[in-house]
Amino acid sequence: MALARMGNADRTADLGEEYRRIRQATEELCAPLEIEDYGVQSMPEASPAKWHLAHTTWFFEEFVCAAWDAGYERTHALYRQLFNSYYVSIGPAHPRAERGLLTRPTVREVYRYREQIDEHLLALCGRRIDDAELAGRILLGLQHEQQHQELLLTDLKHAFWRNPLRPAYLPAAHARPAGFAPLAFVDCGGGLREIGYAGTGFCFDNEQPAHRVWAEPYRLASRPVSNSEFREFVRDAGYRRADLWLSDGWDAVQREGWARPLYWSQSLDSEFTLSGETGIDPHAPVSHISFYEAQAFSRWAGARLPSEAEWELVAKTVPVRGNFVEGGRMHPAPMDSAESGAVSSLFGDVWEWTASPYGPYPGYSAARGALGEYNGKFMANQFVLRGGSCATPRGHVRASYRNFLDPKARWQFSGVRLAKDVS
Amino acid sequence: MALARMGNADRTADLGEEYRRIRQATEELCAPLEIEDYGVQSMPEASPAKWHLAHTTWFFEEFVCAAWDAGYERTHALYRQLFNSYYVSIGPAHPRAERGLLTRPTVREVYRYREQIDEHLLALCGRRIDDAELAGRILLGLQHEQQHQELLLTDLKHAFWRNPLRPAYLPAAHARPAGFAPLAFVDCGGGLREIGYAGTGFCFDNEQPAHRVWAEPYRLASRPVSNSEFREFVRDAGYRRADLWLSDGWDAVQREGWARPLYWSQSLDSEFTLSGETGIDPHAPVSHISFYEAQAFSRWAGARLPSEAEWELVAKTVPVRGNFVEGGRMHPAPMDSAESGAVSSLFGDVWEWTASPYGPYPGYSAARGALGEYNGKFMANQFVLRGGSCATPRGHVRASYRNFLDPKARWQFSGVRLAKDVS
Amino acid sequence: MALARMGNADRTADLGEEYRRIRQATEELCAPLEIEDYGVQSMPEASPAKWHLAHTTWFFEEFVCAAWDAGYERTHALYRQLFNSYYVSIGPAHPRAERGLLTRPTVREVYRYREQIDEHLLALCGRRIDDAELAGRILLGLQHEQQHQELLLTDLKHAFWRNPLRPAYLPAAHARPAGFAPLAFVDCGGGLREIGYAGTGFCFDNEQPAHRVWAEPYRLASRPVSNSEFREFVRDAGYRRADLWLSDGWDAVQREGWARPLYWSQSLDSEFTLSGETGIDPHAPVSHISFYEAQAFSRWAGARLPSEAEWELVAKTVPVRGNFVEGGRMHPAPMDSAESGAVSSLFGDVWEWTASPYGPYPGYSAARGALGEYNGKFMANQFVLRGGSCATPRGHVRASYRNFLDPKARWQFSGVRLAKDVS
Amino acid sequence: MALARMGNADRTADLGEEYRRIRQATEELCAPLEIEDYGVQSMPEASPAKWHLAHTTWFFEEFVCAAWDAGYERTHALYRQLFNSYYVSIGPAHPRAERGLLTRPTVREVYRYREQIDEHLLALCGRRIDDAELAGRILLGLQHEQQHQELLLTDLKHAFWRNPLRPAYLPAAHARPAGFAPLAFVDCGGGLREIGYAGTGFCFDNEQPAHRVWAEPYRLASRPVSNSEFREFVRDAGYRRADLWLSDGWDAVQREGWARPLYWSQSLDSEFTLSGETGIDPHAPVSHISFYEAQAFSRWAGARLPSEAEWELVAKTVPVRGNFVEGGRMHPAPMDSAESGAVSSLFGDVWEWTASPYGPYPGYSAARGALGEYNGKFMANQFVLRGGSCATPRGHVRASYRNFLDPKARWQFSGVRLAKDVS
Repeated sequence: MALARMGNADRTADLGEEYRRIRQATEELCAPLEIEDYGVQSMPEASPAKWHLAHTTWFFEEFVCAAWDAGYERTHALYRQLFNSYYVSIGPAHPRAERGLLTRPTVREVYRYREQIDEHLLALCGRRIDDAELAGRILLGLQHEQQHQELLLTDLKHAFWRNPLRPAYLPAAHARPAGFAPLAFVDCGGGLREIGYAGTGFCFDNEQPAHRVWAEPYRLASRPVSNSEFREFVRDAGYRRADLWLSDGWDAVQREGWARPLYWSQSLDSEFTLSGETGIDPHAPVSHISFYEAQAFSRWAGARLPSEAEWELVAKTVPVRGNFVEGGRMHPAPMDSAESGAVSSLFGDVWEWTASPYGPYPGYSAARGALGEYNGKFMANQFVLRGGSCATPRGHVRASYRNFLDPKARWQFSGVRLAKDVS
Repeated sequence: MALARMGNADRTADLGEEYRRIRQATEELCAPLEIEDYGVQSMPEASPAKWHLAHTTWFFEEFVCAAWDAGYERTHALYRQLFNSYYVSIGPAHPRAERGLLTRPTVREVYRYREQIDEHLLALCGRRIDDAELAGRILLGLQHEQQHQELLLTDLKHAFWRNPLRPAYLPAAHARPAGFAPLAFVDCGGGLREIGYAGTGFCFDNEQPAHRVWAEPYRLASRPVSNSEFREFVRDAGYRRADLWLSDGWDAVQREGWARPLYWSQSLDSEFTLSGETGIDPHAPVSHISFYEAQAFSRWAGARLPSEAEWELVAKTVPVRGNFVEGGRMHPAPMDSAESGAVSSLFGDVWEWTASPYGPYPGYSAARGALGEYNGKFMANQFVLRGGSCATPRGHVRASYRNFLDPKARWQFSGVRLAKDVS
Repeated sequence: MALARMGNADRTADLGEEYRRIRQATEELCAPLEIEDYGVQSMPEASPAKWHLAHTTWFFEEFVCAAWDAGYERTHALYRQLFNSYYVSIGPAHPRAERGLLTRPTVREVYRYREQIDEHLLALCGRRIDDAELAGRILLGLQHEQQHQELLLTDLKHAFWRNPLRPAYLPAAHARPAGFAPLAFVDCGGGLREIGYAGTGFCFDNEQPAHRVWAEPYRLASRPVSNSEFREFVRDAGYRRADLWLSDGWDAVQREGWARPLYWSQSLDSEFTLSGETGIDPHAPVSHISFYEAQAFSRWAGARLPSEAEWELVAKTVPVRGNFVEGGRMHPAPMDSAESGAVSSLFGDVWEWTASPYGPYPGYSAARGALGEYNGKFMANQFVLRGGSCATPRGHVRASYRNFLDPKARWQFSGVRLAKDVS
Repeated sequence: MALARMGNADRTADLGEEYRRIRQATEELCAPLEIEDYGVQSMPEASPAKWHLAHTTWFFEEFVCAAWDAGYERTHALYRQLFNSYYVSIGPAHPRAERGLLTRPTVREVYRYREQIDEHLLALCGRRIDDAELAGRILLGLQHEQQHQELLLTDLKHAFWRNPLRPAYLPAAHARPAGFAPLAFVDCGGGLREIGYAGTGFCFDNEQPAHRVWAEPYRLASRPVSNSEFREFVRDAGYRRADLWLSDGWDAVQREGWARPLYWSQSLDSEFTLSGETGIDPHAPVSHISFYEAQAFSRWAGARLPSEAEWELVAKTVPVRGNFVEGGRMHPAPMDSAESGAVSSLFGDVWEWTASPYGPYPGYSAARGALGEYNGKFMANQFVLRGGSCATPRGHVRASYRNFLDPKARWQFSGVRLAKDVS
């Protein structure tokens, strides 16, 4: 099975246009940056913006240019090492925690690197217009680039937050007036159902094979948990009651001193955003919480997290609409009142933690070779999140899309939706 | 749901006898020890034998004596802290990594503690002969004690191994002559099936609720992987090929310098056992490997690990027989030739890693209160093992029994059985 | 220059007797121990009592038996590794932090080891009655044994303190009634003076060569700082005022959370001693403080620490008398009123931190070979302490004796005496 | 005693000119930098160039502008925290290891900060032309700025070295032809001598009081140890012979994997310099070695390190001439043949480790207040270096100048000169 499944053949003609659009979108995200902002790495898990720009380019150089073009000469002998992320099969990678040490190449040189690869790739594309495998590989590179667009924003947010000057990346958006509704639980039927990607467009290998699962009937929350609801948990000593937490979660609370979501102020009134410090909107989904916080909250609320199957079975019945990065808010928005009995806000705003450890679907096997490392080797000690966030590009996610993170991670736009058994 | 489900009422009458038998078995395991051996702690994950003796006693004192007897006076004010393992609800516990610092109470005092609690408990038992809840609690304490019998041996083995003198706990057993058969894969049917404990005897809360699962048809290996088979993996550079490993596994290989199973010598000819350094029996199941090593081996072998459901669906069809601790070998035994087409050695010898992350069964919810901490709070970042080992007491395991360990753990008798898809 | 200088030839005849006396004294210190107490190691810097018993024996085996007796057969092939402390020239040593893992050899076996070496050594001694080098080496081994007698007590004290049961090693002594006098400063003349050992008895190599130093006139405190005086420093926020501390000291305060001397209770009323928890005697010297605490106290008090030369120039004028281990108190005693204008309590009670980094005297050069590692290789990042303590054997120290410790160390009986410039 | 002693009154008139010259020199050192280079911090001990530019400016703002000008308004409320290095008395400082996270203020903003403070300070200077204390404080700030000029270069060198692209800061200089002479030892007389600053110009507080010391006659090497001589040590297994090393040094060798000077290539043929990778000049002084390496080399060579007094007693007899930063080489130069019987190359090229732990001179006492933290609080666990280096501004050092570093430090231009006793 291929890592990524290519979509309709008729999309091939538009690939060059799609390539230009997505590559340009990355650079547009950098428009507000000072040169000084491009190089900073605030923790090992985060990467400098400059590195994201170069790594996504290296991905095309490595997996397209060098793979399709026999006589291809690499841009720079060391870029293969400097901008390799974790593909061990390709050779040694510059240590992840030391990406911030690379003052060179300069920002200008990295943009020039992007131009060179873009030219090469588009020319190759023109010559091999019918090569479906090439098209599939380029499509994979573009999906990869979109993943890094989101990381570029969340990594930058973390770095700005570590600076006592608390710079702002963009001006604050005005909150839309919204009719906020109390949380409800919607009955969902069980039975022998199918999940996983079964369409004809693009998907990642970890979304396949589509397969049957048995689900007992369940109830899914009508919307994600809001800031005001999570604040109640904080005020009710949620972070001090060991009985609510998984053992590893409680260890994290002790070790890291967690007492509230990552970017919240001690007063629980304001939070750091890409627009600087702003008031917490009580009706927006809570964000920047770990799996452990999501789980403890759910226990406190007398509920539980949904499995990824439970989430997907509902999500596949609704259109993929929501607050994505193109909206320009780059922060979860206050939630509208949903139609009664409906499940809303499944896409955009915040990634939703599920109860499911990230693992292979039955019949999955990672591809051999470097691209087999893309998803498969992370299938331990991570949990699945679903639905995309306010930093995700529109069109990137779908009902079967599986994001995954360390259960301790908090720097992504990650929130929580509750579920319950049918008693 | 209760943490542990009590079995038939007619077993109540024999409970006192069972209590004496299991408590005595613990002490018999200590017969070969010098006083000096009782106190050592060779790593934070392991505990001193003396601590095991006291902790299992504290479990009865805390959850039976003090719970059932209103005027109960505790043996010692500090024992509640010193011998609490991880029950946060009960109060502060002596730090796990510092159990080896407790030269006092002495071994003699700990045995006296055991006597006092035994007397108290048996008297209580006599007075409350019809109290089914009490009986259930005592039964839980006995199952708990059996779990610590196994840990007592594996922890001691680790400590002896860390001593360059390499002491032996018992004399070496002679290997039985055995007809060893090549590994075969046995076809197993799928469909909508049920797993989890549904009987009327004892089980832990994490084995319930019994529930339906959907399984595709699969193939399960006829026996665990042998030492000789695993040695091939080592010789074929299995520990140096990143492509075989999960990312976290590869990190562990690099960080810990893993190059072979935990107790194997560099020459791959001998291994440290509870009988000291002995030759590796090529036909015995490989043991003391982590989940990561099990997973990498399975990939190298062109197979995969079974899910816990796949394991259990077969195991529930066979009797619980095998090489348990009472056999006195305390090491995996060479494997017999199995009946053709049969799956053998499911119980005893080595715990078998499954592909399943340890999580709650649908409908599971940890009990409130301290005993709710017994199993539920560990349901993240662990993997399920099945079947018991050569250090497990006979009668302790069953087809639905779920053991769980950190995927890095190697000091238990943990091995691997392969599975395959039906292609 | 020899590591240790042998004393008068006429002492040779008594060497066997001295050997028996000092070796026996070590074992007498162990009389109150349970078997369980012998093996514990509460931190990497401390060693188990059993290890002290064996290491001091190994010292004689290695540097006397094996060195003088060509055909000598070692007691056990692995003891050379297990009981080597830090003599790299001799070969690999068992890792320091893992001495507590050695449950074997047992206590009984270690005592048997001592007997065997004692027999061998005394026989050798009898045969080589005129061998002055042999006598010198044995004398060195005995001084070494005495150093470990002190460590045995301080290491045990630390281990007992880490046990919440807080065992007592010996019964509490009654405080002598004493006339306590306010601290005074005694004028001491400067000039071109000589320090270092220049006698005909035993000394360590680091006490030599005796050499000239230039000293400006100075003032030395009449006695060590008392518990009541140090308590004033604590109450005056001494541990919270960064301006009083050296930078590395302040780091230690922050990192370790220091807020009072090592064994003091939070209430500043009681302290842990070898007799268990007891009230703090206001008139006894403060003990168990680091160099950094001594230095910060001295700055708070408007004084400074004396240099080791300033200390020695006074100490060489007074007899070596004080509260040593043979007194049986094993704790600093309340101080008597000194004669007016005299400097008292220089010996015994507590080691006194000096301002002098531990370094070589002019002309010093460590001997080649393993014994050259005894003192010389530690001459960096340590500070000199003088005078011996309540755990030091009588007769072991002298005016020129140089003890040295890491400036962070607090588990020895270490205190402070002030000095001032003549203004 | 003041921290820094002001020199002749007649220098006051020229202070403004001196201020402009030294401040400008800092900025000229930054001319070859890309914007991206200004922000990087390659280890906790090193700081970004931008931070050096701002911190030296903050020093003037804090200790001159705000101290002399009652109504002074600070440039930015947070700069006091961001650019405070270690002055605890002033308030919390931005954590040292996180200076590299400050992408803002931008480089342009930092230069603007420099301009603002320069204007303010020069105006203040004009108004208070006769204020000797002000002049002394400004002079201190300028000396401080010069210290950071050196650090700016050595920190940048380290960061460039950590980048696999190995950028060059300046073009390589051609080696001067030089007559190289074998190492000789020059006899130096002892006696009761004086060291410490006793002139009328500027000095740091740690160079005072000038005081008498007693020195035995000694012999000092005619020049620093050369690269070729140190290479012999490496080739003679110097880094693998424990007997040559201090215990803490040997630990560092093991822990850090030291096998040659910091920037040397494995082949021992080339080294990383501010001009990129270049051949090692055999006749230049070895550089970038720790105290431990200097000490081990001296023991290997049958010599020792000089005390700081021994170094100074010779240095005060020669003019302060050598290879300083203004020479533009920024690397140690090949050594000339010295006049026979003379001691040469005492100044410039490399700081020379001495055997002296860094401590207070007799009668020294750190000033109260923040400036008292400048030197005094580091007087433990450091060793003294003398003479300045190729990165030191001309005129900054003198015979009594005391530099000090952690004995493990290797990223400064630090070398070694040998000494011997007169036998």
